[in-house]
Amino acid sequence: MFMRIDKLQIELPPPKRMNPNEAAALQELLGGKYGEMSTLGNYMFQSFNFRSKTKLRPFYELVAAITAEELGHVELVSHGVAMVANGPDQEEPPDGGDISDTPHADMKNIRLAAAFLSNAGGATPVNSNGASWNNDFITTTGNVITDLLHNFHLECGARLHKLRVYETVAEPTAREVCGYLLVRGSVHAHAYALAIKNITGVELEKMLPTPNIPLGNIPECQKYLDEGSHRRLYTFSPDDYRSIAGIWGKGEQALPDDPPGELEVVEGAPEGGKIHQLTGVPSAFTPDYAPEEMFEIANKLYKKSR
Amino acid sequence: MFMRIDKLQIELPPPKRMNPNEAAALQELLGGKYGEMSTLGNYMFQSFNFRSKTKLRPFYELVAAITAEELGHVELVSHGVAMVANGPDQEEPPDGGDISDTPHADMKNIRLAAAFLSNAGGATPVNSNGASWNNDFITTTGNVITDLLHNFHLECGARLHKLRVYETVAEPTAREVCGYLLVRGSVHAHAYALAIKNITGVELEKMLPTPNIPLGNIPECQKYLDEGSHRRLYTFSPDDYRSIAGIWGKGEQALPDDPPGELEVVEGAPEGGKIHQLTGVPSAFTPDYAPEEMFEIANKLYKKSR
Amino acid sequence: MFMRIDKLQIELPPPKRMNPNEAAALQELLGGKYGEMSTLGNYMFQSFNFRSKTKLRPFYELVAAITAEELGHVELVSHGVAMVANGPDQEEPPDGGDISDTPHADMKNIRLAAAFLSNAGGATPVNSNGASWNNDFITTTGNVITDLLHNFHLECGARLHKLRVYETVAEPTAREVCGYLLVRGSVHAHAYALAIKNITGVELEKMLPTPNIPLGNIPECQKYLDEGSHRRLYTFSPDDYRSIAGIWGKGEQALPDDPPGELEVVEGAPEGGKIHQLTGVPSAFTPDYAPEEMFEIANKLYKKSR
Amino acid sequence: MFMRIDKLQIELPPPKRMNPNEAAALQELLGGKYGEMSTLGNYMFQSFNFRSKTKLRPFYELVAAITAEELGHVELVSHGVAMVANGPDQEEPPDGGDISDTPHADMKNIRLAAAFLSNAGGATPVNSNGASWNNDFITTTGNVITDLLHNFHLECGARLHKLRVYETVAEPTAREVCGYLLVRGSVHAHAYALAIKNITGVELEKMLPTPNIPLGNIPECQKYLDEGSHRRLYTFSPDDYRSIAGIWGKGEQALPDDPPGELEVVEGAPEGGKIHQLTGVPSAFTPDYAPEEMFEIANKLYKKSR
Amino acid sequence: MFMRIDKLQIELPPPKRMNPNEAAALQELLGGKYGEMSTLGNYMFQSFNFRSKTKLRPFYELVAAITAEELGHVELVSHGVAMVANGPDQEEPPDGGDISDTPHADMKNIRLAAAFLSNAGGATPVNSNGASWNNDFITTTGNVITDLLHNFHLECGARLHKLRVYETVAEPTAREVCGYLLVRGSVHAHAYALAIKNITGVELEKMLPTPNIPLGNIPECQKYLDEGSHRRLYTFSPDDYRSIAGIWGKGEQALPDDPPGELEVVEGAPEGGKIHQLTGVPSAFTPDYAPEEMFEIANKLYKKSR
Amino acid sequence: MFMRIDKLQIELPPPKRMNPNEAAALQELLGGKYGEMSTLGNYMFQSFNFRSKTKLRPFYELVAAITAEELGHVELVSHGVAMVANGPDQEEPPDGGDISDTPHADMKNIRLAAAFLSNAGGATPVNSNGASWNNDFITTTGNVITDLLHNFHLECGARLHKLRVYETVAEPTAREVCGYLLVRGSVHAHAYALAIKNITGVELEKMLPTPNIPLGNIPECQKYLDEGSHRRLYTFSPDDYRSIAGIWGKGEQALPDDPPGELEVVEGAPEGGKIHQLTGVPSAFTPDYAPEEMFEIANKLYKKSR
Repeated sequence: MFMRIDKLQIELPPPKRMNPNEAAALQELLGGKYGEMSTLGNYMFQSFNFRSKTKLRPFYELVAAITAEELGHVELVSHGVAMVANGPDQEEPPDGGDISDTPHADMKNIRLAAAFLSNAGGATPVNSNGASWNNDFITTTGNVITDLLHNFHLECGARLHKLRVYETVAEPTAREVCGYLLVRGSVHAHAYALAIKNITGVELEKMLPTPNIPLGNIPECQKYLDEGSHRRLYTFSPDDYRSIAGIWGKGEQALPDDPPGELEVVEGAPEGGKIHQLTGVPSAFTPDYAPEEMFEIANKLYKKSR
Repeated sequence: MFMRIDKLQIELPPPKRMNPNEAAALQELLGGKYGEMSTLGNYMFQSFNFRSKTKLRPFYELVAAITAEELGHVELVSHGVAMVANGPDQEEPPDGGDISDTPHADMKNIRLAAAFLSNAGGATPVNSNGASWNNDFITTTGNVITDLLHNFHLECGARLHKLRVYETVAEPTAREVCGYLLVRGSVHAHAYALAIKNITGVELEKMLPTPNIPLGNIPECQKYLDEGSHRRLYTFSPDDYRSIAGIWGKGEQALPDDPPGELEVVEGAPEGGKIHQLTGVPSAFTPDYAPEEMFEIANKLYKKSR
Repeated sequence: MFMRIDKLQIELPPPKRMNPNEAAALQELLGGKYGEMSTLGNYMFQSFNFRSKTKLRPFYELVAAITAEELGHVELVSHGVAMVANGPDQEEPPDGGDISDTPHADMKNIRLAAAFLSNAGGATPVNSNGASWNNDFITTTGNVITDLLHNFHLECGARLHKLRVYETVAEPTAREVCGYLLVRGSVHAHAYALAIKNITGVELEKMLPTPNIPLGNIPECQKYLDEGSHRRLYTFSPDDYRSIAGIWGKGEQALPDDPPGELEVVEGAPEGGKIHQLTGVPSAFTPDYAPEEMFEIANKLYKKSR
Repeated sequence: MFMRIDKLQIELPPPKRMNPNEAAALQELLGGKYGEMSTLGNYMFQSFNFRSKTKLRPFYELVAAITAEELGHVELVSHGVAMVANGPDQEEPPDGGDISDTPHADMKNIRLAAAFLSNAGGATPVNSNGASWNNDFITTTGNVITDLLHNFHLECGARLHKLRVYETVAEPTAREVCGYLLVRGSVHAHAYALAIKNITGVELEKMLPTPNIPLGNIPECQKYLDEGSHRRLYTFSPDDYRSIAGIWGKGEQALPDDPPGELEVVEGAPEGGKIHQLTGVPSAFTPDYAPEEMFEIANKLYKKSR
Repeated sequence: MFMRIDKLQIELPPPKRMNPNEAAALQELLGGKYGEMSTLGNYMFQSFNFRSKTKLRPFYELVAAITAEELGHVELVSHGVAMVANGPDQEEPPDGGDISDTPHADMKNIRLAAAFLSNAGGATPVNSNGASWNNDFITTTGNVITDLLHNFHLECGARLHKLRVYETVAEPTAREVCGYLLVRGSVHAHAYALAIKNITGVELEKMLPTPNIPLGNIPECQKYLDEGSHRRLYTFSPDDYRSIAGIWGKGEQALPDDPPGELEVVEGAPEGGKIHQLTGVPSAFTPDYAPEEMFEIANKLYKKSR
Repeated sequence: MFMRIDKLQIELPPPKRMNPNEAAALQELLGGKYGEMSTLGNYMFQSFNFRSKTKLRPFYELVAAITAEELGHVELVSHGVAMVANGPDQEEPPDGGDISDTPHADMKNIRLAAAFLSNAGGATPVNSNGASWNNDFITTTGNVITDLLHNFHLECGARLHKLRVYETVAEPTAREVCGYLLVRGSVHAHAYALAIKNITGVELEKMLPTPNIPLGNIPECQKYLDEGSHRRLYTFSPDDYRSIAGIWGKGEQALPDDPPGELEVVEGAPEGGKIHQLTGVPSAFTPDYAPEEMFEIANKLYKKSR
């Protein structure tokens, strides 16, 4: 089962301006082969299909716990996409104004026009070219080494994609998403390396970082390194998945390129940051053309619920 | 953010025999247009992209909370698929035995052979014909009525698909999955109907049930009706999403076909049942051909983690 | 614009028994690369995109008129699929009976289970493996020779596929569909050959028939040959598309393998045969579980409309 | 069966300039999830697969007749796409001129370059991002309520998409397409609402319009409202489908937001407007590089046909 | 550039009987995510896109040379598929006989009916469920470590899939394909491991074999082990790619589980075995219904060419 | 089997500037329906699945030999794509420099952003809209006439697409690719026409060229016409496929529009031109961020291999 908390894993700064093409670039980290839907999809189905869960508990729980974190990553990138595609909050006439003068003419020239026409700039599981995420991106074989090795490769590939998106985007929102995901992705790559090392003896973590650039070169990672995020793995559970401490274990150290310190497992989830309030755009019929009445109804229902 | 609990929403009975074609039928409820990946994907991205979240809080929180329940539905169907595809637990020689005598010859005749060859009978997001779930199944427009109406239609369509799968499967595991999901899907259809009624005044809930058959005709639903599951909506959150009580509200009653009583919101998640222990099949290399050493390592790591 | 007539192009004999796998084979002629959705899609979009329509009128009108015939072919194969998948008409208890005893257990073993679970044995634009028809099957370049040559190749390829499906199916319904489409497809191949010959001088019709077997070898074609269907091209229009007689012209003769005679253009549509009455299957919720009340309402509305 | 008339449902004004990105936006209304290929595909296959056609005649005939109208909508949007992508008619050297100086350099920067490279600016069944229409967009369950409810939701969603495309395009051709389709789509939503109300008693039409903006706000709709198009449903058939008058019935009134008046069924099709003459572009090899000889041949064949 | 030699890499034994479902299982090794189209496609595009080819020559040439071997693997599996789908050679009446008695009725029940209807039992790039191979299976990032790590994981995953297919098929043809590809795939996994070790120092080859079963357990591998195939890497080139000897180098040894010996690079290609003569099936119109005349023409042309 | 030679079929001139949108246009010739992946895929699988290879040797060998040439075409277009996407060689700081200042901001606005984000401007099998090449583009029926006719149509369609891409691109690299492929594609169309003529007597070559423009109008074709490339067909094999001379035979002449002369078969491959050296872009992590150490290792391995 899964529970939900109405927070993002971190708080995202607002974008400076509406930038649908940057939002579209960010989609690569959501619906691309090496995007968060893929890390989520792989670990989620691997955890469902895991054999001999009890006998292999630390390995099962590693995949299961990271699944929960990836859900939050999908959420985080999605918010980043929607925020950058829509730009800073604006006041709009509550009735939507005159819609007959081509108010959204610019939208025909954005790279992924359907993101506006169909989704009003919202996020969907597609890549930066608009191609859908799908089952082809999932590997769940039931063979532990094969799956873990796939996951290690996936996190390394994801790091490369995050780096390239980071180099492409200027909006603070998008850069913050990249910076945070780079740190957390590095943790996952490290964790899968340790899992494989425990079984095979191969010191995969020595391949890290791939690509060969330290997180310290990226200002947006710095704050997370400073607070030790690169050394922490969360159980993302009220009570379960604690045996991941057998792998992400006491005694194991941070990677040489990163600030030093012992790896640690944190029970539960990080504190998180507030969900962004995406403003309505009545002229785009979000939440609708003249939403005032709807707001009143909602307000009444809210009061009823207290 | 999301948290994970190492339980299924209900406990599933074991299958009587290995039945890959029933498992493949069950896939329709996982990766089909009206399957759980679709309900999850729609509500998840709608909740991410929701406009004016605060002003429309009960509507936002309804979609957000049901998203979390759908994650558990995806998990539940996936476990059902894997259990039915693999059959009751069996003892296998830990070393995998002789693999050269075509031990899995039957697998070439199952409807979805790739489910064995690639996934060892594990679940993946495909439908009963093996076609992948994808972005085409997602509607997230940012317009509240459009999205809610879509969701209402989706739950009604999902009910039809669940009924047909139910009529196709005989394994207790698969039937339990269908029975439970029928009850919960009815709750969601009911909830979306109430949400729309609050805004538009249209009494959509009078279309329920669609198809026009009461849950009481289905023995596997009975236990859930008896315990009142059809009247309960969970927040699936430690602290959030309580305003859904404005919609699934006190004063509202169960549908006429179902056992009577007032609708109620339950904070948190249901108690849940244990995760099934999918046995390894060494001859299929799950978790591997001769996993004993891997079990020992895992055991050592587990002890280290305590 | 298009008009619709509530008839099939021919009357189809009922199937002897329910045969979902034959229905699935027939799907190749509906949604396969060389199926009727492809001939329809190609000619429809070519006719929309046609340049210099007036200057090239006979060529434009040839493609436009055949488009209308292909709509009827899509309709015919679809009815064939649904009839064979559902079998001969049966009486069912109007209330659907007891659905809890796995009444549709056989459906999990049919090749395309989703055709039942999602479509109740109805036709959809997929091929015999369940893969969707899509834009990849469409060629519309705006270059007249390229498009006509594509169409000639498409009809020859379609003939091969029809022959193979014919050899695979035993139900009279399915065989009648194949027999009729073979005759009409031959007409289209012949027509496109003549069109190209008029422009280029290349006697493409001498490649016909491809594959190299006369229609006379196929009993189900015989009746249509006898009535001269192979010599007739319809305008499928109340008043338009008559200039196709410039290509399918007086003076041109039937192909040597077929019964001799002059080619002729017939204005309008053939007489057609009645639409099959697909019986409801209440246990599959078609039209619903207990449809009697719905029938009464429909009856009242019908009377109101007279 | 289907007949074809060589007219569009309305006459389209020419575009002021070539505007491939507007044409690409318009593609959303052709091949998108809520585009005309989807309304066509859903109703066409639902009408083929309809159970108990006679017993449920008014419902069957409603879906069947609207199918025929949707064919004309697919045709209309396709013409709009091709006209806007190609711009106003121009004289070109009949021999195509010198092709070696990159005459189509601009085409590499248009959003959907393949629309030029492969289709010379012609329409194809893809959405505004170039993703193909496919079977995933079709719901045909055989259950009458499920299908009708799906259709109601589809028309509401289609209205939202039409509105957003309308706000994005400035060419008169494209705006006319949107304006007309908005009126006709509203008719279809209204009709499906009435159909469902007849069976279930739920007053779905009270949700209309969704999104919540009257057609009167859109100048391009005004002429069609003035002539009462919003009150008319056509049989689109020489003789059939008249029982739709049981649903779109005498006594039923126009929606409150629209000009008042009684609903009426019109037998046959509207008068329609002329098909646009898409000029050839010899340098793009449409109809070919030096088409004069082809024109002469066509002329000769045309004369032969009279 | 590529050259072609009219031989398979090994000679394949004939199948004992026609077995379309085994052929369909074998398709997983052709068009599946971990099939030969994927290894080919990955290495081919990686070699095209390789940066700093001269400076990184041994790494570039390793990927380039293995690409050529993979072409032969695609060829080998394809022949295996076609041979098993068609069965042992048979005499058929040269004129195809009477096709009206449903001669291919069995084909409607094979898992991938389109493989017969469209391809006459020939191979195509689809997986064992009939889903198409596509670009989603390709990783070509331009980052050397990322690509090599992907390739290492791909070969390990491919090994698992080959093992499972091997356990599913009984026809000698299919088993020989699996046996040979297992040996060669192990060479490629080993080679990529050594390449990565040279750059990073990580002893990846110690993870081999994955899954954890020695080739010696598989009789069909034995002959290839005996002749030392597991120690040989071919340049598959008349003159190029010799620098792969820097990686697959003298001094490096076979993996511990395999027969011992030094690794060696062989210039050129292996000797190979004859291409199988797939018999025509006139009743399936391959090469055509009555091919005798075609044979005569071919014979005449052949003589003309000498 | 296939062998590889480390050369392109011709030498490509460098681009004048980086032009990702031209590279994206060129992708139509790689992964589009009428691109080189399609010619390759069709002929490759047709040659694998060919029936009665010995009896029909010249026809089999024609398809088999052209397959090998198409591999080189896929390679050539891929190099063209990568060269144009990356621009002329530049010196970059070997350590990648500061990546935190959005060095690749322009990449968010290119039409196919994923081509940079995922492939660093490398080629992949997608079309100019980023849609994947797939099995839908393959026709391999086993019927010789059907397949040859398909191939003839494919080469004619491919010529049209090459012409349009040629008219769209200005970079010398891209134009050279188009010019060469136009000449070679014309040879293949001519060869398939002759093959069909030999069997059926239909003089298909009289349809050539389609579109109706002589190669002589294209300066980039001139050099290849001057050296007689349009009269030459290569066996692309050390020893095999010589019987194609029965079709591309002595006595047959060049097409009327092209420089006159007798057709000739050349054993083996053309001389070819050097593979382009794609420079690394450390800031894009190709081959990596600070690749110097990797270069040293490669150099050492290279020396070891001599």
